[in-house]
Amino acid sequence: MRKSSKTPTVLLTGFAPFGGESSNPSWEAVAGLHGARIAGHRVQAVQLPVVFGDSLRTLRAALREHKPALVICVGQAGGRAQLTIERVGINVDDARIADNRGQQPIDEPVVAGGPAAYFATLPIKAMLQALRDAGIPAEISQTAGTYVCNHVLYGLLHALRAQPRVRGGFIHIPYSPAQAAQHPGAPSLPIDVVQAALRLCVRTALRTAGDLRLSAGAES
Amino acid sequence: MRKSSKTPTVLLTGFAPFGGESSNPSWEAVAGLHGARIAGHRVQAVQLPVVFGDSLRTLRAALREHKPALVICVGQAGGRAQLTIERVGINVDDARIADNRGQQPIDEPVVAGGPAAYFATLPIKAMLQALRDAGIPAEISQTAGTYVCNHVLYGLLHALRAQPRVRGGFIHIPYSPAQAAQHPGAPSLPIDVVQAALRLCVRTALRTAGDLRLSAGAES
Amino acid sequence: MRKSSKTPTVLLTGFAPFGGESSNPSWEAVAGLHGARIAGHRVQAVQLPVVFGDSLRTLRAALREHKPALVICVGQAGGRAQLTIERVGINVDDARIADNRGQQPIDEPVVAGGPAAYFATLPIKAMLQALRDAGIPAEISQTAGTYVCNHVLYGLLHALRAQPRVRGGFIHIPYSPAQAAQHPGAPSLPIDVVQAALRLCVRTALRTAGDLRLSAGAES
Amino acid sequence: MRKSSKTPTVLLTGFAPFGGESSNPSWEAVAGLHGARIAGHRVQAVQLPVVFGDSLRTLRAALREHKPALVICVGQAGGRAQLTIERVGINVDDARIADNRGQQPIDEPVVAGGPAAYFATLPIKAMLQALRDAGIPAEISQTAGTYVCNHVLYGLLHALRAQPRVRGGFIHIPYSPAQAAQHPGAPSLPIDVVQAALRLCVRTALRTAGDLRLSAGAES
Repeated sequence: MRKSSKTPTVLLTGFAPFGGESSNPSWEAVAGLHGARIAGHRVQAVQLPVVFGDSLRTLRAALREHKPALVICVGQAGGRAQLTIERVGINVDDARIADNRGQQPIDEPVVAGGPAAYFATLPIKAMLQALRDAGIPAEISQTAGTYVCNHVLYGLLHALRAQPRVRGGFIHIPYSPAQAAQHPGAPSLPIDVVQAALRLCVRTALRTAGDLRLSAGAES
Repeated sequence: MRKSSKTPTVLLTGFAPFGGESSNPSWEAVAGLHGARIAGHRVQAVQLPVVFGDSLRTLRAALREHKPALVICVGQAGGRAQLTIERVGINVDDARIADNRGQQPIDEPVVAGGPAAYFATLPIKAMLQALRDAGIPAEISQTAGTYVCNHVLYGLLHALRAQPRVRGGFIHIPYSPAQAAQHPGAPSLPIDVVQAALRLCVRTALRTAGDLRLSAGAES
Repeated sequence: MRKSSKTPTVLLTGFAPFGGESSNPSWEAVAGLHGARIAGHRVQAVQLPVVFGDSLRTLRAALREHKPALVICVGQAGGRAQLTIERVGINVDDARIADNRGQQPIDEPVVAGGPAAYFATLPIKAMLQALRDAGIPAEISQTAGTYVCNHVLYGLLHALRAQPRVRGGFIHIPYSPAQAAQHPGAPSLPIDVVQAALRLCVRTALRTAGDLRLSAGAES
Repeated sequence: MRKSSKTPTVLLTGFAPFGGESSNPSWEAVAGLHGARIAGHRVQAVQLPVVFGDSLRTLRAALREHKPALVICVGQAGGRAQLTIERVGINVDDARIADNRGQQPIDEPVVAGGPAAYFATLPIKAMLQALRDAGIPAEISQTAGTYVCNHVLYGLLHALRAQPRVRGGFIHIPYSPAQAAQHPGAPSLPIDVVQAALRLCVRTALRTAGDLRLSAGAES
């Protein structure tokens, strides 16, 4: 009896703490959803290290092992006020601060010879609409930065480029309230709100063909 | 047997919706605490209209009726990311937008002939410390603005000026997540977090003599 | 022939550098106006130290020496994007960072026994209007903070409390572009723009009786 | 005697006003540099309409006519505080507001069948360093948005994809002070500062082979 072959998997990843923080709300949120059933799928939670290179090795191993039907990577964006769904990953590592192994690449490609960017293949507008309808503050983001989060987003989309039926993308989340309590002026969202948001995003991504036509751009 | 004479009261006020919003998280938070027991006191919740003049009439009536041992007024500060404890109320009404009765005073005193300002008499630093220790993002604010919130804060402290044993002040809270979902980029805090914060503030205010010595100023 | 007795004086003060900066745009702007003639008055520029206590001793000495008809103190507000005219000074020192002599007062009065606040006696709304009409970005600020700038504003207004014909107040200015070049993301205004603004403010303050009725408040 | 064949050209473009503004500082700055000589090149200034499609037709006509050795397109980014050098243009139009012809595309490609993105071919880090050394506040931006500015950046890089010796890219500039005077709280930079910055960028781009290795990334 092979249970795993019956229930398709959704892969959610979160990150280890970095940048002087003692926790990472992305992992707290994702870990709490491990094993959950959403729209006929089982959530597999995997933690990625905040390390250029290693993060993608761990991610690719998880893709091979779990053969997910959907992949959403989640990361902390200290300073952002809302849950932000990333539109695009770009082929560059440019680290303002060192990663958790002390690496600080400058203007190096994520994948040598890869294209300049990949668009997330999630239905980002349908997810945005679902979150707003549920009263959860969310936006589309036009940049995932140039650090490990963008590295993972680009690397994920590169890994999935030959599997058009497996949709993938990245969601940035604000600090948790406990983190924001250490950063005067910083916005936050509680873990339970983030988890409700992620459940909704997974459900929407699994049930939406194509995407919604909804304006969510930026002038600059 | 007059139960009400035995249990001292804490007065918490919240506001009606204003500025085009259909709800006001200050009232949602405060209403949910009505009747709660905190540190031997009973919470009395009262809603104030977002109206210059009327708001203070309602507040003064509540002071007369409930004879509270402690008063904390709560208001929404759309755009602020953290719970902010106000340090001072100033004797001026200067309305950028009309109040809920269409009044828009410009540079008029809250109390004609009153002093330029009153400092809140709450132990604002002890409250700040208690919130941060509990992982709730909070700050001291050096201005409550010049709209109905400041009007109420100044009017409250004027009303209490001869009652040094009744401490009073004002707390601004961010948008609720549901409101922020309508304001791209806006920070928020859920009502349950705000309620936990208010409970902690009430408890701390009731149990603290004087205040803590804790730096929480601003260069500008 | 005593020329100085014939020409009334406007006192402009700026500050020494602080907080790790090697220059202070408030002094650069004010120093460049020393000796200028504006609306029949001569500008006297004086530098104040960023030191609690000493700054007010220097200011009071300048008031005695120059007997100005108008006093505008100017200070740097790193992070603010526009020139901000302060409405009120409050009677509290609460230093987040040490001053240039290592002092870091917490919740101490500027003037023991003084009132909680003084309103600036400048025609702040007429000045705001004049700046905007001239295409210079400006706002009214409802707080000068709790550091040396507020200390000086409160102390100035306390010193002038018995001289209603000598108007006084405070203007905060953004970083200079050269400073902002060291602070990614920080807004700035060039010194020449600030000087044009200060000239206009002095002229407007000297020529305006009372003040303009103009909404420039804040909800919080 | 063919003068144009002797002096190589730098093409600078600015935009017409949009979004309710009566001027566009990008055109004011660029127009004032028309005809200037920088590092042996002559500046050709061209105005682009804030219109999807038309802007690129005008740009491509200018490329054909002037055969520039270097192209820098300049656009207004109301709300940004510093001059921002764009790193990447992405292949999507997603308009939050209508363009000047009433078009509001949603999630349409700039170039059907084009790659997801192109990196600017300017030496963006060397330009950043030159600006900071000159005391001009500047940053690298990881997104040019999804409106006409990004449309032009992507379209420019697509047009130049077969001409590796002609470097091209995009610089966003803040509001002018006169615009910011109409937008309380908005940052600004004067036109003369922007012009000095553009001169420096042109000179640096013409004189730099490759680019500098300088960290200027973002975590998110």
